[in-house]
Amino acid sequence: MVSSKLSDYPESVTLVEVGPRDGLQNESRILPTADKVKLIELLTACGLKKIEIGSFVRADRIPPLADTDKVATLLPPNAMVYSALIPNARGLERAQEVGLSEVAIFMSVTESHNRSNINRSTGDALAGYQVLVKQALAEGLRVRAYLSTVFGCPYEGAVSPEQVRPLVSALLETGVYQVSLGDTIGIAHPLLIAEILEALLPEAPIEALALHLHDTRGTALANALMGLQMGIRVFDTAVGGLGGCPYAPGASGNLATEDLAYMLNAMGIETGIDLNKLVQASHFLEKSLGKKLSSKYSQTIPPQE
Amino acid sequence: MVSSKLSDYPESVTLVEVGPRDGLQNESRILPTADKVKLIELLTACGLKKIEIGSFVRADRIPPLADTDKVATLLPPNAMVYSALIPNARGLERAQEVGLSEVAIFMSVTESHNRSNINRSTGDALAGYQVLVKQALAEGLRVRAYLSTVFGCPYEGAVSPEQVRPLVSALLETGVYQVSLGDTIGIAHPLLIAEILEALLPEAPIEALALHLHDTRGTALANALMGLQMGIRVFDTAVGGLGGCPYAPGASGNLATEDLAYMLNAMGIETGIDLNKLVQASHFLEKSLGKKLSSKYSQTIPPQE
Repeated sequence: MVSSKLSDYPESVTLVEVGPRDGLQNESRILPTADKVKLIELLTACGLKKIEIGSFVRADRIPPLADTDKVATLLPPNAMVYSALIPNARGLERAQEVGLSEVAIFMSVTESHNRSNINRSTGDALAGYQVLVKQALAEGLRVRAYLSTVFGCPYEGAVSPEQVRPLVSALLETGVYQVSLGDTIGIAHPLLIAEILEALLPEAPIEALALHLHDTRGTALANALMGLQMGIRVFDTAVGGLGGCPYAPGASGNLATEDLAYMLNAMGIETGIDLNKLVQASHFLEKSLGKKLSSKYSQTIPPQE
Repeated sequence: MVSSKLSDYPESVTLVEVGPRDGLQNESRILPTADKVKLIELLTACGLKKIEIGSFVRADRIPPLADTDKVATLLPPNAMVYSALIPNARGLERAQEVGLSEVAIFMSVTESHNRSNINRSTGDALAGYQVLVKQALAEGLRVRAYLSTVFGCPYEGAVSPEQVRPLVSALLETGVYQVSLGDTIGIAHPLLIAEILEALLPEAPIEALALHLHDTRGTALANALMGLQMGIRVFDTAVGGLGGCPYAPGASGNLATEDLAYMLNAMGIETGIDLNKLVQASHFLEKSLGKKLSSKYSQTIPPQE
């Protein structure tokens, strides 16, 4: 039985803003560098504690993020807030060149998604990351990991806790401080969230786990509530609900930062986020992309002229 | 602490489809009578156990629902599934003329919303309904009640459990079999849902309570999850997430039937709803209204030609 007691919930929650990376990489319109910088500045002003600004992959692999180096150098010196994806040693080098103090590695639970996404087996990916994370840590960076297809795979269907558990352990053993569990295709439901977390919690401390939820089928905020109830204190979100799902054209993207922030603020859970400023960032992004975003909260507030 | 155990949740849940009433009454485009009939037929075919087909108020009060009598007479004889709003004895008469076996009364917790909506004090409304429900029951109809502004009022702001409790009791005493608790402006959050239900449950049996959630700020499905966890087994929803909020132009409407049905089906909670057929009804409605609706689940499935 649940209750209305705020004390049953985490006192504070950190939102990791992934809009400029996971959001924009799935948008067909490529944002000008200046607009990305402006967006990240607006997001920084909201009180977000971490913002993923891009990805240091090969420029031809993800064209919308080809200018991540440039974006990073144009940002005000506030490196504690910013991180970016790195697939390999070259990515780490680029992250260091622009002065980032945090990076993120990424792989999938399922072999077929891992191969399609990063062109390696999960075994090879892990072996590579063992070396890469060690190097990053030695150079004084913090490293986070994204694990995709935790709740289901577009190629292999259902995923079991037994598939997820060893990979989470292996990733934590590389030295990453946290594994973000990705509902890549937005197929999770609350009981599956609880089932996977129950399977992981005996081996991973709660602060080493985060949830990265997509709202493809509208369940992201309900899944986040279940995550909160299981003790999760870190959620990846994207301003405006930016992004889509390559496997479901036209579908919604990431859980919208402002929708989760609204719910947490309303519940009395500390986020440090200024909701009004966040909505302004969302409206700026809508204007820049030339399309209506899917956040419901932001639609209740008219854009400022 | 919550768990992944399905046994902690209701075995089955009933969705009351309010799209043809609460949804259409908030749409600026008035659907032709034939399209309403077709929509209701499509919804009936989905396995929904109850559908609210309209409102027997004065035609000039809610023009989009002025043809409820006609809609009712054009529907196939399946009266067990259908209900409609009645404000007074004339409404009851009209419901009986078209052969409905169930009707619903409606009022608000807050005085100012009650006056603005039905032009009476809450005391006068209750007194009127005491007579009306008695009459309806005597004529063999079932009666349900909607209570609006339970979680907040556009005029009076926050609403306390102490305001809600006596009205729920008074409504149940009139003889209605259920009170549907309305988050009229979509301002509820999960802890408020729990708080209000905890205040009501000592006096009202769980089956006498339903939740009527609006998705104005994106929290409806998370609020529904909390309702489920508190034992609620009946939710009002609208196909496609139809409807809006008169107090927030452009905002989302009711919780989308297909989004809740998807989540419940995925969790293994029985709804009796055929999700594919429901999506077809939603796509028909989008075509008829000439606009994209806000259900996220339906956007993952391409319309059939």
